[in-house]
Amino acid sequence: VSILDERSKAPEHRQPSIFELPTMFGVAQLVGEILRDTIQRNSDTGERSDSSFNATLLVGGQIAGMEPRLFLVYPEGNFIEASEDTPFLQIGETKYGRPILLRAYDPAMTFEEAVKLLVVSFDSTMKANLSVGMPLDISLYNKDSFKPQPMIRIESDDPYYQSISTGWGDALKSAIDSLPNPTL
Amino acid sequence: VSILDERSKAPEHRQPSIFELPTMFGVAQLVGEILRDTIQRNSDTGERSDSSFNATLLVGGQIAGMEPRLFLVYPEGNFIEASEDTPFLQIGETKYGRPILLRAYDPAMTFEEAVKLLVVSFDSTMKANLSVGMPLDISLYNKDSFKPQPMIRIESDDPYYQSISTGWGDALKSAIDSLPNPTL
Repeated sequence: VSILDERSKAPEHRQPSIFELPTMFGVAQLVGEILRDTIQRNSDTGERSDSSFNATLLVGGQIAGMEPRLFLVYPEGNFIEASEDTPFLQIGETKYGRPILLRAYDPAMTFEEAVKLLVVSFDSTMKANLSVGMPLDISLYNKDSFKPQPMIRIESDDPYYQSISTGWGDALKSAIDSLPNPTL
Repeated sequence: VSILDERSKAPEHRQPSIFELPTMFGVAQLVGEILRDTIQRNSDTGERSDSSFNATLLVGGQIAGMEPRLFLVYPEGNFIEASEDTPFLQIGETKYGRPILLRAYDPAMTFEEAVKLLVVSFDSTMKANLSVGMPLDISLYNKDSFKPQPMIRIESDDPYYQSISTGWGDALKSAIDSLPNPTL
């Protein structure tokens, strides 16, 4: 990210600058190339350990006159785009929180319902992997606004988060109870 | 496993035989040593690929006059035992199905309810990773019986499995609906 920042600060010295690219697709390509190069450079130097040096990024934005776009950039530099078929993108510790997204996400959801689903998904991840923790940061972008909304931060003592975290365990048990038992 | 089988077949040639060990703890130790040695031998020879050669095993049983015990043996040869604090052990693609086990498992569950929970957990995994598939095999051991029950196999066209797989999506959506929406 600091390399991208550097390029955007000094466009006369570094080519191409991220702000000069005509499309978000081009931005994702550039981010992918820089990510791949940075990972390769760091994998050959510095401390060695069993874990590999890696990163996956989300890149989103809108250029005037075009639709907003959101990409997930892999460590190899390639990327996928959010679409109707891939309505949510996950990075990091993705597996624990994925089944609830697959099962409960609905394109007809309101925005508030979608945020509730995200909180449930992250809460499942944090319950299963103690190295994942609060806070949750929510970054919103309204189409054609060309500026981000103020970041929403949910801390662990947030009353809404606590009501979800407590209520979800009970809701899941009721959901299990509602299904028939097997005959063995 | 074939090495263990070999040792149990020819106890006069191979020492120690798995059937000569006095405790299940000793059996888990022996299995761990053989697993670690087999992985080390195979990691140095044969085809090379990016993925590492690995295995995790469940080892359980009962020796007359003692309690039944169940162990999860790691590729490094160490192991953990099922207990009140670790009432379920998972191997393979464990993450997708883990949150529902953490949230809904209850020691007071009936055996039928526990099997239902396992089916839900495996179904979540199969929905999230298409390389995990049916059938589900259920192996039961009744304490002090000293012989396994016949294996129960659940195929993908099993009516009970289908009722769970279909019903769980609806039950999860109802569970999400029962939680309050955030005010943003």
